[in-house]
Amino acid sequence: MQGNMMDVQLTVPTILERIRTQYAAREVVSLLVAGRDEQGNPVAHKHRTTYGQVADRSLRLAAGLLGLGLQSGDRVATLAVNSFRHLEAYLGVPSAGLVLHTVNIRLHPEQIAWILNHAEDRVLLIENVFAAMIPALKAACPKLEHVFVLGPTPQPIPLPGVADYDTFVADSAPLARYPQIQETDAAAMCYTSGTTGNPKGVVYTHRSTLLHSMVSAPKDALNVGEADSVLPIVPMFHVNAWGLPYTCAMYGAKQVYAGVFADGRSVASLLRDEQVTITAGVPTIWMGLLGELDRAAADGHPYDLSRVERLIVGGSAAPESMIRAFSDRHRLSLLQAWGMTETHPLGTASAVPAGVDPTSDEGFTLRAKQGRTVPLIELEILSDDGQRLPHDGKTMGRLITRGPWVANSYFKGEGQSNFFDLDGQLWFDTGDIATLDERGYMHIQDRAKDLIKSGGEWIGSVDLENAIMAHPAVAMCAVIAMDDPKWDERPLAIVVPRPGQTVTHDALTDFIAPKFAKWWLPDATVVTDQLPIGATGKVLKRELRDQYRGYSTNPGLVPPASPDRSE
Amino acid sequence: MQGNMMDVQLTVPTILERIRTQYAAREVVSLLVAGRDEQGNPVAHKHRTTYGQVADRSLRLAAGLLGLGLQSGDRVATLAVNSFRHLEAYLGVPSAGLVLHTVNIRLHPEQIAWILNHAEDRVLLIENVFAAMIPALKAACPKLEHVFVLGPTPQPIPLPGVADYDTFVADSAPLARYPQIQETDAAAMCYTSGTTGNPKGVVYTHRSTLLHSMVSAPKDALNVGEADSVLPIVPMFHVNAWGLPYTCAMYGAKQVYAGVFADGRSVASLLRDEQVTITAGVPTIWMGLLGELDRAAADGHPYDLSRVERLIVGGSAAPESMIRAFSDRHRLSLLQAWGMTETHPLGTASAVPAGVDPTSDEGFTLRAKQGRTVPLIELEILSDDGQRLPHDGKTMGRLITRGPWVANSYFKGEGQSNFFDLDGQLWFDTGDIATLDERGYMHIQDRAKDLIKSGGEWIGSVDLENAIMAHPAVAMCAVIAMDDPKWDERPLAIVVPRPGQTVTHDALTDFIAPKFAKWWLPDATVVTDQLPIGATGKVLKRELRDQYRGYSTNPGLVPPASPDRSE
Repeated sequence: MQGNMMDVQLTVPTILERIRTQYAAREVVSLLVAGRDEQGNPVAHKHRTTYGQVADRSLRLAAGLLGLGLQSGDRVATLAVNSFRHLEAYLGVPSAGLVLHTVNIRLHPEQIAWILNHAEDRVLLIENVFAAMIPALKAACPKLEHVFVLGPTPQPIPLPGVADYDTFVADSAPLARYPQIQETDAAAMCYTSGTTGNPKGVVYTHRSTLLHSMVSAPKDALNVGEADSVLPIVPMFHVNAWGLPYTCAMYGAKQVYAGVFADGRSVASLLRDEQVTITAGVPTIWMGLLGELDRAAADGHPYDLSRVERLIVGGSAAPESMIRAFSDRHRLSLLQAWGMTETHPLGTASAVPAGVDPTSDEGFTLRAKQGRTVPLIELEILSDDGQRLPHDGKTMGRLITRGPWVANSYFKGEGQSNFFDLDGQLWFDTGDIATLDERGYMHIQDRAKDLIKSGGEWIGSVDLENAIMAHPAVAMCAVIAMDDPKWDERPLAIVVPRPGQTVTHDALTDFIAPKFAKWWLPDATVVTDQLPIGATGKVLKRELRDQYRGYSTNPGLVPPASPDRSE
Repeated sequence: MQGNMMDVQLTVPTILERIRTQYAAREVVSLLVAGRDEQGNPVAHKHRTTYGQVADRSLRLAAGLLGLGLQSGDRVATLAVNSFRHLEAYLGVPSAGLVLHTVNIRLHPEQIAWILNHAEDRVLLIENVFAAMIPALKAACPKLEHVFVLGPTPQPIPLPGVADYDTFVADSAPLARYPQIQETDAAAMCYTSGTTGNPKGVVYTHRSTLLHSMVSAPKDALNVGEADSVLPIVPMFHVNAWGLPYTCAMYGAKQVYAGVFADGRSVASLLRDEQVTITAGVPTIWMGLLGELDRAAADGHPYDLSRVERLIVGGSAAPESMIRAFSDRHRLSLLQAWGMTETHPLGTASAVPAGVDPTSDEGFTLRAKQGRTVPLIELEILSDDGQRLPHDGKTMGRLITRGPWVANSYFKGEGQSNFFDLDGQLWFDTGDIATLDERGYMHIQDRAKDLIKSGGEWIGSVDLENAIMAHPAVAMCAVIAMDDPKWDERPLAIVVPRPGQTVTHDALTDFIAPKFAKWWLPDATVVTDQLPIGATGKVLKRELRDQYRGYSTNPGLVPPASPDRSE
């Protein structure tokens, strides 16, 4: 029997209408680049606007794009930092029935051109600070018809099809009526970083965007409401800034954008000056903030961050030591969340269960896990032969997921091996190795390809890295597999010490020994001065594995010449 | 262009799976009737169970019902108070692909039988305290095949097809696999109280139930999370208890059910003893609670309700005086919400905008309105000739709404005149007269049929009633239209004084005069000892209009004999 409910589709224009009608007075604050200082560093200018103005400009952008002859489903790319203009694209492009394609600005220009061509983008909105790329991109991307530059440039760019975004928006009349949009229509797309093979496109729908916004708001997820001031430091080119621009607009929260100013001092000042309550970023950002807060406290001028309720951390695992440091030293609460480009991203959040004190040992242990699913997301762990494994908190298996905002394929049908049928249902293989416990807490042990298999047993590199990074002398750490004639593989720790600090293999091993079975402990520690970092801020373990291939504690194998060896 | 997101349907089993896997340890507390005292009043027994047990029993109920031969879409009725068993029906019936039909226990048995027949219910789950109705219902409802009694009865009911619910559940094996359910399939149904004509059925879908649960949780709506303890005093037969059983289960909040014990003392004790954080009910309930809290405070033994964060009030408008009284005298926060059986019900919530102090005069004024829409709900006000009216906070119009959890028709296609097309979109006519302001605040002025039209202008009875009820000598008040030879209609106030208090027309008029235009003030006041109340707790204005038909301040018309006239 069918129910008698209206067939109202879940579409992005319903979000745009909320900021236009209910939240028009709420602010959107952006740090823009006003110029350069004598050292060539960008100087910030703080720009303030309102949701009402953003809504008006979004509707002008929408009408302007349709006026260019774009058709429903055509892709509009952005190469932009976090700012109110990027927010206008978030709202205006899908509301015109077009597809917002956010491109990672940290990629190599050749990769960017490859992605623009693959997505067949017809329009590019590009931040003024990247305008130097325009000629090369225009040359490499024949389907790119229009380029609009976000923000002023020192002089006009004399190329056909290149124009100023603000002028384009101001010259368009606001969209008078939204086009017919079905909720399964594409709203936005984002390419995975792709550590192997070409990047792959994930195409979000209007439905998935709306559901993801709704599921992100409640207090056991991100806790967003109208009274909040939200600073998404996670870039808007990275999985829709974890959906926060949409979630905040849906619920009327003030938005604060840091643009290119993501250093500890800039972030701490924004948190204080804009009375931020919720902020979100990768662990690297919080390490920078922690350093700045420690420095300021030591100087006797601590920041007043009393309004900050929650620092959301995702992208990679936050070590328990970092969660404790923010709590103990600055009374700030980190909430870990997990997701992927393929999951929109929100899959789990690590709020503690009812009755558990978040600052107890049990609380910190749970908060260092990736957490429990938000509604409508399912997780399972599978054995190598595809059997469901027990949720006992110990058994490691391949993490798979499904839900209404999980990809069912990549753009153009690529990467089909990541999607598979289990008992008649479609699942996505995350490529992670994880445990699930009786209460549903998921804990990622490793990327499947980074896992260390020693004597037939799995060793998770992530837990080892987090434990080593808790040592006060350690700045960064990666643990990879090295070949071993007896055990096949054994863990090798590669460590970057903090400035002026020294570390030794024995000291680190003694430090972490109480937390692990003896056979999990690294057999060797390499000390180096930096780790290779990819475009999304993660350590490139593939490069480390290449670099240390053949490295062994076995005297019969020769260590490579380059890295120092502490022991 | 289609997006690449999984086609995962929004269905009730996803909620059931959450309490089974993530929240199994959370409690469900129910006040059951253990017997009768010497005066024949029910004596309470506090029953405690867990979500894990509720999930197990819901799955047994689902399998048991399918074992009776019920087919997808068949209706299962409940005539039950709020308790864990009713919650099992909420989860188990839709998870079996069947339709939960909650019937209002306050209706006359003949109306109940009419509704059971109209819905073609095949199974009835009936509370033991109503078991005396069974023979008459069985006789009147030939399609009713099975009746299960919730809770023990003094002796078995020797009728064919009547059995004990707990035994039925215990004897069934849990459902092994959920049936295939599409999100547009019916999940639940509820009949409107129907002050005119026959009751009409509203059929909720799985999709509308899930979306409604998601939209209810955030802090600007009901603010439900795992750490909460929620007492829905609003009955589970009344628009799914405003969706709270589903919302709480989805987010893991503890649920507390008062059963038949909704008096001020029982409610105050439950709030204190079960550390309730959120509770929900109609204004009458809160008037009862307010009286008890005042009494206890005056006796020097105030209740410790420090854990209570929010009293949600809906069903009819809460007077500003009540909101202020809870705030000023007991530091308790009332949040007004608006909705109807046809809207699932949540349409608006009256959280104050960012930057407004909820306990300022502006805050109280806004909180006495019905509030702003939750995401995905649209509101408009129309003139008599169907034109959209301005959102200026002053212009009154007929309130219409649309959204994914708003009815598109009634069961069996009845009442089609309530649904109509406007600019190519389907809207539902609420039958209310309201204003909308620039920020989206909706304020109900009256039911369209209760509106007073004086000299061609509209006067809203609800505002007048709320203002009069703020007078300390007034217990209840209704304002209706009386015939007037000059102005067509003029307002007549019908007032029930508090015990031992006297009220006069002049005193009341002086009291409310500062708030209204002079021509809004009632021309006369009738003092009486009670008002007629309907099955959903609302004043039956239709009866009052019948009773006072012909009443007039004009000496040429004769007042009816029965009511006293104060002036």
